[in-house]
Amino acid sequence: MSVLVVGTTALDSINTPKAKNPRLLGGSASHAAVAASFFSPVKLVGVVGDDFPSRYVKLYQSRGIDLTGLERVKGGQTFHWHGEYEVNMNNRRTLNTVLGVIENWSPKLPGAYETTPYVLLANIAPAIQHTVLDQMSRPKFVIADTMDLWLNVALDDLLRLLKRVDCLVLNDGEARQLTEDDNVVSALARIHKLGPRYVIIKKGEHGSLLSGPEGLFVAPAYPLKKVVDPTGAGDSFVGGLLGYLAAQKGGSPAKHLRRAMIHGAVVASFCCEGFGLSHTLRAKRPDIARRVRELEKLARF
Amino acid sequence: MSVLVVGTTALDSINTPKAKNPRLLGGSASHAAVAASFFSPVKLVGVVGDDFPSRYVKLYQSRGIDLTGLERVKGGQTFHWHGEYEVNMNNRRTLNTVLGVIENWSPKLPGAYETTPYVLLANIAPAIQHTVLDQMSRPKFVIADTMDLWLNVALDDLLRLLKRVDCLVLNDGEARQLTEDDNVVSALARIHKLGPRYVIIKKGEHGSLLSGPEGLFVAPAYPLKKVVDPTGAGDSFVGGLLGYLAAQKGGSPAKHLRRAMIHGAVVASFCCEGFGLSHTLRAKRPDIARRVRELEKLARF
Repeated sequence: MSVLVVGTTALDSINTPKAKNPRLLGGSASHAAVAASFFSPVKLVGVVGDDFPSRYVKLYQSRGIDLTGLERVKGGQTFHWHGEYEVNMNNRRTLNTVLGVIENWSPKLPGAYETTPYVLLANIAPAIQHTVLDQMSRPKFVIADTMDLWLNVALDDLLRLLKRVDCLVLNDGEARQLTEDDNVVSALARIHKLGPRYVIIKKGEHGSLLSGPEGLFVAPAYPLKKVVDPTGAGDSFVGGLLGYLAAQKGGSPAKHLRRAMIHGAVVASFCCEGFGLSHTLRAKRPDIARRVRELEKLARF
Repeated sequence: MSVLVVGTTALDSINTPKAKNPRLLGGSASHAAVAASFFSPVKLVGVVGDDFPSRYVKLYQSRGIDLTGLERVKGGQTFHWHGEYEVNMNNRRTLNTVLGVIENWSPKLPGAYETTPYVLLANIAPAIQHTVLDQMSRPKFVIADTMDLWLNVALDDLLRLLKRVDCLVLNDGEARQLTEDDNVVSALARIHKLGPRYVIIKKGEHGSLLSGPEGLFVAPAYPLKKVVDPTGAGDSFVGGLLGYLAAQKGGSPAKHLRRAMIHGAVVASFCCEGFGLSHTLRAKRPDIARRVRELEKLARF
């Protein structure tokens, strides 16, 4: 079954001490859509300006991603993030952000999108996530991702959203901030009370946690000897997760969530191995299957 | 089979915003020996002063711990650590440390200890770990634990020790410091080159990693809703690990290392739930077995 992905479609310029990587394809929706496209057909909802390179449109198309919902604003500028890494590659800082066409965007869904069964509200303003959900007709499973920015500037919108989604994905720092609870395990119970039946906490290299009616799941990350650029890893994780979920036949989504997280973790591992989408795009289904088998061996006891 | 444990036998005074916990039984050897005693007979090597309460001697004895190797120094003061927690219980700071009898200690092993097959060099000065190993006769499996202090003040001793042990246990920060490598996965390969066939990296609430000839193992931590006092959790982990290993029949230690780490993680989880050894001592074998089964369910995919 197909997956609708809404989020940012951006240009990322990433400087390192050794190289400049100008205007890479980035944004939460780009990473999530490409990750989901390994497993399921994807319908993209996003907005770009005139400056959005046609090679990136072709790249989406090469993954079979439906672009009916990708708005192009005449005279507009694509959302652009400019950042740099320090020497040790662990600290990233933002040099400049241009919101461009995303600033006043209110997505209008193509009619054919409205009945998409799996919905990924990738990281973007909660108001936009609401607008998309308002136009959907009884989706089977809705996942929302978010970030600390929205906890700071759009908490009310986010809290209303939590009542409307099946699963919230956030990182451990965000879980602490949202619940004012330093313990991530007890924070999970507090987040369930805010609405979502499933909560997934991303912990980067330390893996992820799933909490739901069936209890807890502790998922490992794929251990990488070298991390080149973690930008988009969280989006790849959740995109791979929902793409895998949508491809499963039989049983409720809950039945497949654990293996979906493992597949998301593996797609995220490829994302971390190169700048932007370079290594995610290089990976093939057998590469993913191989790392999933490796994780099975790594975690067995 | 039995386990020899050498390390600090200390008194810990721990203040919190709500309570003072003066002169609890603490130290790396105390936590490790009690943890190991769930599974195997333990021989303790340590040193205390006149001020060491007889109730703590009885406590060791109640766990069947052999105290022939516990030196009592007349007129001496027991190693005493005094620390306090901040309001959120996440930050601990040292108020005072009295080395006492540990300062000039050179352990002399009782004859009956020399052939103990499993040896745990719990956290203490590497010179003391060497002295114990010098007196051992061909042990089956030797694990050394350490801490950042020894990387700073006794690196040469520690590097010599790494050539003499089967397994080194350290936390992720220490692994980074030892190898000057920010990536924990690639740091493992560097540590193997320094000597040990097995390396275990402790990551607290994020679990642990084992690296050895059979590849990597990613072990989960037991998820706790409330952490009261993590002091001694690392010692409990490694003590439980080696105690479990020594109790297994058939095959090389390597065959049982993964499940040994899971058992260590479970003992450490009890340790974190109370001050000092209070909750470790309350746990029974069925409690440990129950949490091991829970971890099996939590990690399955």
